[in-house]
Amino acid sequence: MGYQTEKLKQEKVIRDPVHSHIYIQDQIIMDLINTAEFQRLRRIHQLGTTSLTFPGAEHTRFSHSLGVYEIVRRICNHFQRNYPTQTPGDGLWDDQNRLVAECAGLLHDIGHGTYSHTFEHIFQTNHEEITQEIITSEGTEVNQVLRKMGPNFPNQVASVINKTYPNQQVVQMISSQCDADRMDYLLRDSYFTGAQYGNFDLDRILQVMRPYEQGICFKKSGLHAIEYYIVSRYQMYLQVYFHPTSRSMEVILAHLLKRARQIAQDPQYQDDFQPGLLRPFLTEQFDLKHDLSNYLQLDDGVLTTYFSAWRTFPDPILADLATRFLDRKPFKSAQFTPETKPQLTELRSLVADVGFDPNFYTATDNSYNQPYDVYDPTDSHPNAQIELMEKDGSLIELSQASLLVQTITGRDVGDSRFFFPKEMFHPEAAGLFAETTAQFQSYLRNDHVIQPKESQHD
Amino acid sequence: MGYQTEKLKQEKVIRDPVHSHIYIQDQIIMDLINTAEFQRLRRIHQLGTTSLTFPGAEHTRFSHSLGVYEIVRRICNHFQRNYPTQTPGDGLWDDQNRLVAECAGLLHDIGHGTYSHTFEHIFQTNHEEITQEIITSEGTEVNQVLRKMGPNFPNQVASVINKTYPNQQVVQMISSQCDADRMDYLLRDSYFTGAQYGNFDLDRILQVMRPYEQGICFKKSGLHAIEYYIVSRYQMYLQVYFHPTSRSMEVILAHLLKRARQIAQDPQYQDDFQPGLLRPFLTEQFDLKHDLSNYLQLDDGVLTTYFSAWRTFPDPILADLATRFLDRKPFKSAQFTPETKPQLTELRSLVADVGFDPNFYTATDNSYNQPYDVYDPTDSHPNAQIELMEKDGSLIELSQASLLVQTITGRDVGDSRFFFPKEMFHPEAAGLFAETTAQFQSYLRNDHVIQPKESQHD
Amino acid sequence: MGYQTEKLKQEKVIRDPVHSHIYIQDQIIMDLINTAEFQRLRRIHQLGTTSLTFPGAEHTRFSHSLGVYEIVRRICNHFQRNYPTQTPGDGLWDDQNRLVAECAGLLHDIGHGTYSHTFEHIFQTNHEEITQEIITSEGTEVNQVLRKMGPNFPNQVASVINKTYPNQQVVQMISSQCDADRMDYLLRDSYFTGAQYGNFDLDRILQVMRPYEQGICFKKSGLHAIEYYIVSRYQMYLQVYFHPTSRSMEVILAHLLKRARQIAQDPQYQDDFQPGLLRPFLTEQFDLKHDLSNYLQLDDGVLTTYFSAWRTFPDPILADLATRFLDRKPFKSAQFTPETKPQLTELRSLVADVGFDPNFYTATDNSYNQPYDVYDPTDSHPNAQIELMEKDGSLIELSQASLLVQTITGRDVGDSRFFFPKEMFHPEAAGLFAETTAQFQSYLRNDHVIQPKESQHD
Amino acid sequence: MGYQTEKLKQEKVIRDPVHSHIYIQDQIIMDLINTAEFQRLRRIHQLGTTSLTFPGAEHTRFSHSLGVYEIVRRICNHFQRNYPTQTPGDGLWDDQNRLVAECAGLLHDIGHGTYSHTFEHIFQTNHEEITQEIITSEGTEVNQVLRKMGPNFPNQVASVINKTYPNQQVVQMISSQCDADRMDYLLRDSYFTGAQYGNFDLDRILQVMRPYEQGICFKKSGLHAIEYYIVSRYQMYLQVYFHPTSRSMEVILAHLLKRARQIAQDPQYQDDFQPGLLRPFLTEQFDLKHDLSNYLQLDDGVLTTYFSAWRTFPDPILADLATRFLDRKPFKSAQFTPETKPQLTELRSLVADVGFDPNFYTATDNSYNQPYDVYDPTDSHPNAQIELMEKDGSLIELSQASLLVQTITGRDVGDSRFFFPKEMFHPEAAGLFAETTAQFQSYLRNDHVIQPKESQHD
Repeated sequence: MGYQTEKLKQEKVIRDPVHSHIYIQDQIIMDLINTAEFQRLRRIHQLGTTSLTFPGAEHTRFSHSLGVYEIVRRICNHFQRNYPTQTPGDGLWDDQNRLVAECAGLLHDIGHGTYSHTFEHIFQTNHEEITQEIITSEGTEVNQVLRKMGPNFPNQVASVINKTYPNQQVVQMISSQCDADRMDYLLRDSYFTGAQYGNFDLDRILQVMRPYEQGICFKKSGLHAIEYYIVSRYQMYLQVYFHPTSRSMEVILAHLLKRARQIAQDPQYQDDFQPGLLRPFLTEQFDLKHDLSNYLQLDDGVLTTYFSAWRTFPDPILADLATRFLDRKPFKSAQFTPETKPQLTELRSLVADVGFDPNFYTATDNSYNQPYDVYDPTDSHPNAQIELMEKDGSLIELSQASLLVQTITGRDVGDSRFFFPKEMFHPEAAGLFAETTAQFQSYLRNDHVIQPKESQHD
Repeated sequence: MGYQTEKLKQEKVIRDPVHSHIYIQDQIIMDLINTAEFQRLRRIHQLGTTSLTFPGAEHTRFSHSLGVYEIVRRICNHFQRNYPTQTPGDGLWDDQNRLVAECAGLLHDIGHGTYSHTFEHIFQTNHEEITQEIITSEGTEVNQVLRKMGPNFPNQVASVINKTYPNQQVVQMISSQCDADRMDYLLRDSYFTGAQYGNFDLDRILQVMRPYEQGICFKKSGLHAIEYYIVSRYQMYLQVYFHPTSRSMEVILAHLLKRARQIAQDPQYQDDFQPGLLRPFLTEQFDLKHDLSNYLQLDDGVLTTYFSAWRTFPDPILADLATRFLDRKPFKSAQFTPETKPQLTELRSLVADVGFDPNFYTATDNSYNQPYDVYDPTDSHPNAQIELMEKDGSLIELSQASLLVQTITGRDVGDSRFFFPKEMFHPEAAGLFAETTAQFQSYLRNDHVIQPKESQHD
Repeated sequence: MGYQTEKLKQEKVIRDPVHSHIYIQDQIIMDLINTAEFQRLRRIHQLGTTSLTFPGAEHTRFSHSLGVYEIVRRICNHFQRNYPTQTPGDGLWDDQNRLVAECAGLLHDIGHGTYSHTFEHIFQTNHEEITQEIITSEGTEVNQVLRKMGPNFPNQVASVINKTYPNQQVVQMISSQCDADRMDYLLRDSYFTGAQYGNFDLDRILQVMRPYEQGICFKKSGLHAIEYYIVSRYQMYLQVYFHPTSRSMEVILAHLLKRARQIAQDPQYQDDFQPGLLRPFLTEQFDLKHDLSNYLQLDDGVLTTYFSAWRTFPDPILADLATRFLDRKPFKSAQFTPETKPQLTELRSLVADVGFDPNFYTATDNSYNQPYDVYDPTDSHPNAQIELMEKDGSLIELSQASLLVQTITGRDVGDSRFFFPKEMFHPEAAGLFAETTAQFQSYLRNDHVIQPKESQHD
Repeated sequence: MGYQTEKLKQEKVIRDPVHSHIYIQDQIIMDLINTAEFQRLRRIHQLGTTSLTFPGAEHTRFSHSLGVYEIVRRICNHFQRNYPTQTPGDGLWDDQNRLVAECAGLLHDIGHGTYSHTFEHIFQTNHEEITQEIITSEGTEVNQVLRKMGPNFPNQVASVINKTYPNQQVVQMISSQCDADRMDYLLRDSYFTGAQYGNFDLDRILQVMRPYEQGICFKKSGLHAIEYYIVSRYQMYLQVYFHPTSRSMEVILAHLLKRARQIAQDPQYQDDFQPGLLRPFLTEQFDLKHDLSNYLQLDDGVLTTYFSAWRTFPDPILADLATRFLDRKPFKSAQFTPETKPQLTELRSLVADVGFDPNFYTATDNSYNQPYDVYDPTDSHPNAQIELMEKDGSLIELSQASLLVQTITGRDVGDSRFFFPKEMFHPEAAGLFAETTAQFQSYLRNDHVIQPKESQHD
């Protein structure tokens, strides 16, 4: 297996604004980057509709994947310098795991598709399964490259990503509550959106990170760097990932795809509607083995190209939603709570009164996330909690050491929103419907759905 | 004309990583941003194929256009604070020009299309003419918004961009050798590529900028800030804009489009080839009045969507070039000079020997630019030169004051390159063609085409 | 009063790495900067002993004072653009207050002296009283400049700083829980230490800030920017301001000055000890009126110059402490709690056993701060709480809107530490005292004072 | 020699805003940092009087020295990863040289004193000789630490700094036209002044750097990164290092020290003048062996402390110059050329007419530097020129490959200035001397000394 040890005689670099440079030191990493499946990530935005709110956020899953690889590489260097294993089972770092870790870091998102969040929801695809398939099925270029390392290497890489690899240090580098994936995307999303909230101190975290028997923990002296990272995550969720305008554009996207599916299955439009590469998704159940190559042909540009054609399609809802998506005409939204949720029925009805089909012109969206959680064995996806190591080797779980983290531990951060056309709000909607829209607006105050005064009297 | 003075009661902001925020203070600016023609700029990369070399460079003409507007706005603020006109003709700043300047800044690139550089070359379109058309022809949303300011306002904005507006201060804000356009793109391209070379001192330049009778000049004390800006430009050309890999991908793109045109016009493929929105460009002469709406439907995603379909088209050249473009398989290249240019004939012939059609698998590209030039009235597009103002009001042309600038004044910076398939170079090309490729390689040394030793003896 | 309106015809700028440039637009600001009292701030570090932990933190109160002025100037610009008063009492901004606000921002720290924290503690000086004196007493250059604006102007500026100025918007710009002072020092201390924790989003905060009847509040949409700022403050306290090494060096400084006072008052040393400018502080009660000029002659360099001379003074404690301070030989420290505080008696006794006078070689320090607090009228210095304004004008107090802030509201952040010579810990202290130091160390674990095992048996 | 291999088990870090962290991996480096001679560098500004122009530039030789060490460490890592020696004499990197290189980087400025530029000029000290002395003479703490590595180690470190160490790769890391010293100070001075001009691309330069037989060269592909670095140097000289205001404050400092020497040697003041630690410098010839400890007691704070005392000294020139220095009252200046130099006689005479002693109130200063030079064996300090290596191993000297560099190669950059009191220029000087100052001003125009019109007629 000469390939295995085929270090590049001189490392190569790729310029990256987040990490300055990505250092490529092995032929296999270079070869993986050059596969069709990996290059395809250049055509898939990292943050879906977020660039419609933050215009700088045009970065792709390609550069994020390189960034994750680079952080993994730096963690390995740090572990090898400061915590090299002496005897098996001493809980220190065995650098034999480096290549499998680096490949897993590079490929962890290889199964992601166009606007994953919405697409998976509508079409029942699963990017994690697709990732496993791309790595392990013999038809892909990625698999061919990996196999040069040995017949079992693809499975090893795949097992890191699905967390069954025996060495938990490697698994936690890629998937844990403070892993290379999360660290890269916080920094990267922060850099490209221009929101400074994700800008935690990577150098400091790498330096207090250390291997131990159960995986990866952090020196206690790094408490505040970790705390800051958790707060950054919390802030990025609230400020960027859950931004109402981006979610509104996702709502439009989802409704557009749903409408397209209706039309694709409607005999009336049989000949006129040309959904191209989307056809299998619109008309059948997605089948991973059968449809993989089809899936890999989709990207963000393919979708907007279809949308562009749909602008003039005879179905007015399809045409209008396509136009709203392309020309960025977001829905408005308001927060609701369990208490005010009952009002939504009336709101939908008022939207219908003005002439909008509420199935396609209203929506609710619940966006919540837990910036940090402790280990709960009863959870379906229990998280390894973040452990801090004292000087004497004893461990303390993060939220026990940090008041700030304790506050947000296990707590859902986010909100529930009701989306509706901005025509319900703006003067141009007035005239004929002035009374209806006025009534609609009486349900809204300070960005929230409320119980309007008059209905209180009912 | 209430619209004209319709200041937003509270300014709105758009987050931008380069300028921190873009400040929108007038309803008309907000309305222009919301037009379909302007939103379309979100789907056109600022730097075409450059993101294939610098993965961060996914930024679009949309955010650049906002950035130019923002710099114009800041220049107006600075002029109004420090150099407000007292009497007509005093050469100082009349803030009545602010809105026309800001609109022109925002819209200066509105006519740009997908991969403009290559597209214009192949299809004879002209983004400057298209910009004028979008602003002045009544069918566009942009024109409708502008007309609200008065019937002549679109023409005023258009005249700033084509440099015929009477107030040269406004013209030079948008188009001169140190204008808002160049300043934004240097900073922005530097930020998103991660190449630090374009990172000059915007604040300092804005502060030494001043209006005078002939347009805009700079206080002499700002000499070094200007000098640094010119050197930044020079560096960005050499390091980023003329990067051989990006140009190689442009060569592939150009060959791909040329091949598509051949096929579109080839009766043999009449029914099988579906070029969609590209058809009018592939089969006819582009006609601005007639084809504008067609042109506005194209974007980067539309092109790659077609390319994706072409991957499996029966024509092997079309299919192969499409694959090379999508999977980023750049040609290799080598510099040549007038002296070594004659060797290219032999090199093309060797490429043909290996089985590649040299018309589609080789190319030459001359990329040159002048980072700075003095005024030359005999030039077809004479540049207003950069003038520095001494304390006593006397003027000195930049290159007279700066040794560094003098060196690069009027000098073409760049190189001429010959492009060819990397198969001519790599081991896999060997075997049957080992001798041919060895001969080919004997013409290349240190990134240059040379006269090989043995042919010297002939 | 031509001086009052004496705008600089063209603004002047001072380069500043935090704000890029400081813009000076009025003659009075320039004149204040050029006074001896203000220039003296160049010789006083902003962060006292912190540069002994973070070597970059050599910045001075001079640049901080400029930065506070600059933020005040930007707030005034923002208020004037977006919230200009229409009628008296409408709660909007009256730009007549600009100059008094800017002067107060510039001068708010003018009374600070060398190593203020320690110096005030030891010598009972009060930098706030001294600030008032410098501004209002006729002998200073600052007062002479201010009086050019009118005889009452110095008092107005002073009243802003002591919070009695009638316009609370001006007062809160300078002194509140989110004021120009705190915002500048967080950014500046973050920049110069290199700790990224203080790097909140100033632009965003300035933009959501608004005047109202009771002072200054923030648009609700800016909640997360404010939240992030509060968390930044919290982090900077824990990571930078309360760093144990810096506090240890402060302890040494305090002990050194105390020892110097003993010696200055000790007849035995009457002739040999030359405390120079420190004499009045060492031998008498500080009297503001009498000793102001004396106080203004002290700066950080003056103190270290004396310390340098004291290195060789016959008193071994004075000489040793001076050497430790100059050569940066910090004490070690460990946290203690009310429970473990009783152990300190034994620890001090063990330090004495090794030969160190515990009065000069041990100390306790309690460093606590509240990153945010709500208004408590019973507090001696009640804080104006941070109010957020909803779209409909209603107000909500910050901690009611932010879970994170609620967690830290009114909570003391920091720790209590016991300081002792590192000789108690290091091998060189062993030998003769090996048993004593081993016993000492048995009281310490993981950076905390503990109840040692054997004493538990007592 | 266990000490030699005494790697720190876990590396330690020092926070640094320029390099993020300084990584300490060997006990000897930590011990050197903790010496009194090295800690003393904390009290010496890196840029002398420059902070009087750029208020952020308060950084010290201490953090610069750490930065140089850090860059050396990174170069060694890069060389060891990419160019490890295989056989002696192969021109690649032998990592046995690492520690001597790192120590030399750390200590290269250890002999610098307070305001070195001026101090050396006035008192004939030489910081390079003092550096050698501190490293090699047995009385210093630095020497004691170094000797733990072996009796010859101090000499080895000293020989790197004086360029006689046999391995030229090590020598050129510390002293060449693109060395760790210059690279750190450009970045650091840029960061702390806020002038962005020195902000070249360190990562890229480190990555194209390589060892070869004659020392260190750069891969040709890094040409533009080197070019940019040279231009950065050029810009920093013109914008920061040669700033007229800083030089003006240096002129005042020099005159102040000269006056102090006159007074110290004047029997009239024998008893009243207490120059303290400066006495040996003011009254005798500096003797390195004898006065080293004295020299090491001086720092920037010691000087300003004396100046503060001199403010009230009976000699009006001493008192006035001390006040001008402390309160930052710079002289004005104007450029002169060989042609206009003859006018200076008249200008000095006019300054005398107003009552200023021209020996202490006027000065000329020639500040020139060569940002890059080619090797000239006839030069007293010939510079190793920067060599670029082509892919085939051939070398090309930098200025042969770069037009920009060629322009400034061997060229003196800077200017000659005449300094004079601003009273010659400002209205307050008018009145009695109105005619004299008007005449003086007629010699000045646009920041230059000119031949006034009327004198042309003479």
